[in-house]
Amino acid sequence: MSGFKKVALVGSGLIGSSIAHNIRARQLAEVIAVIELSEDRCDEVLRLGLADIATTDLSIGVKDADLVILCTPVGTYAELARNMSEHLMDGAILSDVGSVKAQVISDVAPHVPFGTQFIPGHPIAGTEKSGPNAGFRELFENRWVILTPTQGTEPKAIDRLCRFWEACGAKVETMDADDHDMVLAMTSHLPHLIAYSIVDTANKLESSLKSEVIKYSASGFRDFTRIAGSNPTMWRDIFLTNKSAVLDTLSRFNEDLTVLQKAIQDSDGTALFETFTETRKIRHEVVEQGQAGTFDPREPDEVDSDPQVLTPYGGA
Amino acid sequence: MSGFKKVALVGSGLIGSSIAHNIRARQLAEVIAVIELSEDRCDEVLRLGLADIATTDLSIGVKDADLVILCTPVGTYAELARNMSEHLMDGAILSDVGSVKAQVISDVAPHVPFGTQFIPGHPIAGTEKSGPNAGFRELFENRWVILTPTQGTEPKAIDRLCRFWEACGAKVETMDADDHDMVLAMTSHLPHLIAYSIVDTANKLESSLKSEVIKYSASGFRDFTRIAGSNPTMWRDIFLTNKSAVLDTLSRFNEDLTVLQKAIQDSDGTALFETFTETRKIRHEVVEQGQAGTFDPREPDEVDSDPQVLTPYGGA
Repeated sequence: MSGFKKVALVGSGLIGSSIAHNIRARQLAEVIAVIELSEDRCDEVLRLGLADIATTDLSIGVKDADLVILCTPVGTYAELARNMSEHLMDGAILSDVGSVKAQVISDVAPHVPFGTQFIPGHPIAGTEKSGPNAGFRELFENRWVILTPTQGTEPKAIDRLCRFWEACGAKVETMDADDHDMVLAMTSHLPHLIAYSIVDTANKLESSLKSEVIKYSASGFRDFTRIAGSNPTMWRDIFLTNKSAVLDTLSRFNEDLTVLQKAIQDSDGTALFETFTETRKIRHEVVEQGQAGTFDPREPDEVDSDPQVLTPYGGA
Repeated sequence: MSGFKKVALVGSGLIGSSIAHNIRARQLAEVIAVIELSEDRCDEVLRLGLADIATTDLSIGVKDADLVILCTPVGTYAELARNMSEHLMDGAILSDVGSVKAQVISDVAPHVPFGTQFIPGHPIAGTEKSGPNAGFRELFENRWVILTPTQGTEPKAIDRLCRFWEACGAKVETMDADDHDMVLAMTSHLPHLIAYSIVDTANKLESSLKSEVIKYSASGFRDFTRIAGSNPTMWRDIFLTNKSAVLDTLSRFNEDLTVLQKAIQDSDGTALFETFTETRKIRHEVVEQGQAGTFDPREPDEVDSDPQVLTPYGGA
């Protein structure tokens, strides 16, 4: 059986709360404990029905848990692992959902007690929303979860965690931590950095131009604002902990952007056309992989202001 | 009455075909003529029911039309205007849908005959799809259309074109052409350039890494691929015709990106956090303006492969 007796979720943001929804809906554990930073947040978690136990005390939260998942920004993991170490149950699985894996292993592994199976994980799923209220059951449906187990991890434990994620609707792959970090630097971290940067540029425009940019944002820019609306703490930690892969992809990007910039300066239409034709092929490959996706249309703020479901993203 | 006797659409791509759907559904003209480059394309237009007349002959297409709209890439406008000039009806309105306005005025205005009202226009709406099959009636619903009339344009003609677009569901504003080009460089042209560039970077990765990037694209990157899947000819022309505004915003962006790059290099978490907090505010303003939108969820290739409506875009 793949069910757990007690799952302890450290953090109840978008991912943590979505995991809780899945455990509830699919009966994947007998007890859900959420560990949060404040009593207010614990109250909110209980009010939302996300947990049976909500506590600010890490030792109470992880006690007797056979699955513990770190769902906080990756910068907090080292201290959390150190503090929970002596309270982890023998035979427990310790995992996480961080978007960086090599640094997470360096931070957490030294504190993992003998008898606990540490299996780093990363569900590639999310929205730009944060907090316990942002989670929903369908978040992991048809999404990848990458596990990066270290040598010596019991295959049985990996298998058990796989089945947990599959029960949440996800597809699971295992991968080397460094490979994961390079792939994610390209697919996620660099795009987020770029989106943050372009919105930052707009933010610094003189105020009349800035208000027109916001008014007429439905033309590419608003998709960047969506990405750049993501949780600041989480993203700060990602850039700090996947520094070398991010800087490496950024430097490749800068080179390619300089080539395009020069093509515009030189009015080299052929070069532009060729690049744009190549990039279109990548789009087709992404669509073929079934990962093309769509933004979450349920967002209440948008549904309220614009009941039109078929709102396209604005072309030019 | 705001209806037209005959509307001639030069080009039947995403925008042209969407205008045709609107004219049909809302009875905004008695006759729709589409001018296309090939007989095959004319046949397709007729098969899709987009026009009463589909012709490769510009003079036949615009003959007796009281509204002519250029819906081709902006690089084609000068020649089109020159070639149609002597065939335009006295009292006709000539407009366009190009994403650049100052250069369009330079290209078109010299060829506009006395008695024709030239009113440059730009519907800020679109998807990454192209072609007669890509259009749909709801495309302009609640979207902005910016008109940049030149001095001496008859207010009556502007009013008539306004009412046409409003009948298509759009909100209309008039603006100075240079202001338009600066705002669009920031909201649309720069984001597209960046998206093309980042997908270009991914495209140049060694093949094993590239295939993993495509596989795990649901994390920011796929939204860039969507933008970078847009029509290459159209975008080549936009960058060539709005060169100075694009290069200006690009240089501002490069400066801001360099600051973020340095913050990562220096592990300056405070600087990153502060920037990411500011950009999040912009997102909230965009949402408040009701322009936050969502990607078009009707895309058949995606709906088929993933019937899940609530597919979020992938966070990290």
